[in-house]
Amino acid sequence: MASAPRRTKFVLDEDRTPRTWYNVVADLLPKGIAPVPPIHPGTGQPIGPEDLAPLFPMALIMQEVSADREIEIPDPVRDAYMLYRPSPLQRAYRLERALDTPAHIYFKYEGVSPAGSHKPNTALAQAFYNKEAGVKRLATETGAGQWGSALAFAGAVFGLEVKVYMVRASYDQKPYRRILMETYGASVVASPSPDTNYGRKLLAETPDTPGSLGIAITEAVEDAAGRDDTKYSLGSVLNHVMLHQTVIGQESIEQMQMAGEEPDVIIACAGGGSNFAGLVFPWVGRMLRGEGSHRVIAAEPEAAPSLTRGVYTYDFGDTGHLTPIVKMHTLGSEFIPEPIHAGGLRYHGMAPLVSLLKENGLIDARSVHQRACFEAGVRFARTEGILPAPESTHAIKVAIDEALEAKERGESRVILFNLSGHGHFDLSSYEKYLRGGLEDYEYPAERVAESLASLPKVGG
Amino acid sequence: MASAPRRTKFVLDEDRTPRTWYNVVADLLPKGIAPVPPIHPGTGQPIGPEDLAPLFPMALIMQEVSADREIEIPDPVRDAYMLYRPSPLQRAYRLERALDTPAHIYFKYEGVSPAGSHKPNTALAQAFYNKEAGVKRLATETGAGQWGSALAFAGAVFGLEVKVYMVRASYDQKPYRRILMETYGASVVASPSPDTNYGRKLLAETPDTPGSLGIAITEAVEDAAGRDDTKYSLGSVLNHVMLHQTVIGQESIEQMQMAGEEPDVIIACAGGGSNFAGLVFPWVGRMLRGEGSHRVIAAEPEAAPSLTRGVYTYDFGDTGHLTPIVKMHTLGSEFIPEPIHAGGLRYHGMAPLVSLLKENGLIDARSVHQRACFEAGVRFARTEGILPAPESTHAIKVAIDEALEAKERGESRVILFNLSGHGHFDLSSYEKYLRGGLEDYEYPAERVAESLASLPKVGG
Repeated sequence: MASAPRRTKFVLDEDRTPRTWYNVVADLLPKGIAPVPPIHPGTGQPIGPEDLAPLFPMALIMQEVSADREIEIPDPVRDAYMLYRPSPLQRAYRLERALDTPAHIYFKYEGVSPAGSHKPNTALAQAFYNKEAGVKRLATETGAGQWGSALAFAGAVFGLEVKVYMVRASYDQKPYRRILMETYGASVVASPSPDTNYGRKLLAETPDTPGSLGIAITEAVEDAAGRDDTKYSLGSVLNHVMLHQTVIGQESIEQMQMAGEEPDVIIACAGGGSNFAGLVFPWVGRMLRGEGSHRVIAAEPEAAPSLTRGVYTYDFGDTGHLTPIVKMHTLGSEFIPEPIHAGGLRYHGMAPLVSLLKENGLIDARSVHQRACFEAGVRFARTEGILPAPESTHAIKVAIDEALEAKERGESRVILFNLSGHGHFDLSSYEKYLRGGLEDYEYPAERVAESLASLPKVGG
Repeated sequence: MASAPRRTKFVLDEDRTPRTWYNVVADLLPKGIAPVPPIHPGTGQPIGPEDLAPLFPMALIMQEVSADREIEIPDPVRDAYMLYRPSPLQRAYRLERALDTPAHIYFKYEGVSPAGSHKPNTALAQAFYNKEAGVKRLATETGAGQWGSALAFAGAVFGLEVKVYMVRASYDQKPYRRILMETYGASVVASPSPDTNYGRKLLAETPDTPGSLGIAITEAVEDAAGRDDTKYSLGSVLNHVMLHQTVIGQESIEQMQMAGEEPDVIIACAGGGSNFAGLVFPWVGRMLRGEGSHRVIAAEPEAAPSLTRGVYTYDFGDTGHLTPIVKMHTLGSEFIPEPIHAGGLRYHGMAPLVSLLKENGLIDARSVHQRACFEAGVRFARTEGILPAPESTHAIKVAIDEALEAKERGESRVILFNLSGHGHFDLSSYEKYLRGGLEDYEYPAERVAESLASLPKVGG
């Protein structure tokens, strides 16, 4: 109600769109922290670039293993970024007032992209490199539908066919996401689907399964591996995906400088890890180079808390065990999370690079229940106007907790979080919350233990 | 596919958010063009401010009759504007390339507001003035749901209860819009509703009517007139609503200067007229002052073409005949348009100020069919990424036609249009279009003639 005399938005001109992606590996190596190579699921040996060639174009494979600090963003990708980048950084004055907190709360808003989340940052890059390599068609999975719509959009921009395997729980909850993908020209099927061997097998065993990201990944990989004109595209987990998302954090560093503040704590939700990495890696890089000090928190769902409760070990990225074996925090590749409404966070594993930072104490993690997250989301909508995606409400919940703790302690505190996307396609979830029909799921310790019992055997 | 080396977005810093609203009346009067006063529906005499007092706070009534060129925007309103203003102006390079046109196409994008359209520009102002006047509760109608979500958002910002009568056709087609309003804290009912005398009467007569804006207005007016704590809030048509929307056009003038171009043609869709007036009035003002020359086109639906096919005369703003009688282009207040998917354009009349400009040859109008509009909308989404609201696709369709005409004639042409909102809540309409299930409605000449037969009698 009272007026906000100070600056609300920190907007960069489009020529400030980053010209390079930032690779955190370059700043980890001097500290003796090195990523471990993925293992081939068939041979049990470390995989080389040629093993990945059936799935990805060589340019992306080279990025996957690069140790260069900066990788140039090709002009056509940067031009497409400028349809929506740089994204705004905003100070949440009205939320601060509602909380009556001395904390300053800033958020980076990725919902301004055409697909409504941070996902186009890598979708555009992946579509570009595939197009350059002569690929005609991309196959992918999507959880909440954010990644699928991003790749569908990128396919329209660069002229590629896109086939999306959409986790059934989201397919049923979010018809609008499906229609958005179709409007961009993609074809979409509920996963498990009758379109792959793996999907047909699962449908025969458990016809009413809600599906999972792990299952949908297997289907998309099987599709891509089986067709010459098709490659696979993944919206999270892999190093090159983390890399492309770092435009978020790079912009936010410049914008926090405009605001004249250094964040004490930096927060992002983490499912596969790409939104988290996107905001956080450039800030972690500064810390590694001795240029700042921040607490960094990954906000996870209590129903799939891989970083807070998972094991750091070698595991499959997918449920059907077609993908390389990577070292990461995992709940076991056979673990299928409950159908929480933050579909993008329903994943058993975590990006190897994010896991590596966690294992080395460079970042922290916290798990939260979905009802408390929706409560935070409604509070945010009623103060700041923007309706957040269910995934993003996990970051808001942790940001609010931090702001209230600062109030309790009578401390100043500068909080920065990533509002990874809007919730315009998640309103059926909001309705369920508003009607009291949403349930919380306790951490399924027994099911996780069962799933972890069948980890792949990797020598060493 | 090719790269776009030039500037895409023209973004103003938030301190460039306009400090005043622009009143076109001030520039019309010296040309001998004067608005005619509304007529009291009971007495048949011109109404004074006191007649409007049961419905509106005095500050808005004074704006309704003001002849001042500039009216200061109160700080709390301007602060709330800064949650999303200034909105971006973008050049649609990718659409230009897809059309292979020499025309330059610019669009002002109002979909960045929290409610997803231009409507918060007046909702925030109206909520503020009502709050200042001690009002506790606002009643309003909504067509597509854009206005209702804007007022729900504004109610959350300024602490007012909001009751929304939502046209049944949209209520059924757009559940997400209803949930968004509820998430902001508003209560929503389908109109005609059992909550008013007029609604009960209509439901008894025609239980399965799709409703109309005219009907919903009557219900909201009846609600507000019957309660001391409640005032009425209208999302279009009235002079003060046009006034508040002029932030759009003022920003666009500065942004076109950044782009270094003068528009040859300026286009906006028109239902009640507020989005059109918002973009166009400041440009028309410049023309009236001899500072420029532009063709100006209102894009209307063929199913409700009040400016292109209606009569310029005195008529009721609502179907139940509770509102003042105003001089405007109308299809008759008893005309209920077919349930086209651009719900915000399903109105029998047109803002008196927009009608006055049309009658004096200062603007032009063109009507278009909905399938061609959706085709233009999909084309826009696949090139520029943004999914437009069905209302906004009417402007896109006319802009594309202008660009293709320029190509045919081998002429350069600078086109500016208002992309009034996004279509994230209209995906069921897009699905219908993509599946071939959308029909066009011919201009219903007979029904209009019938409706025009019962115009109110006004002396003179």
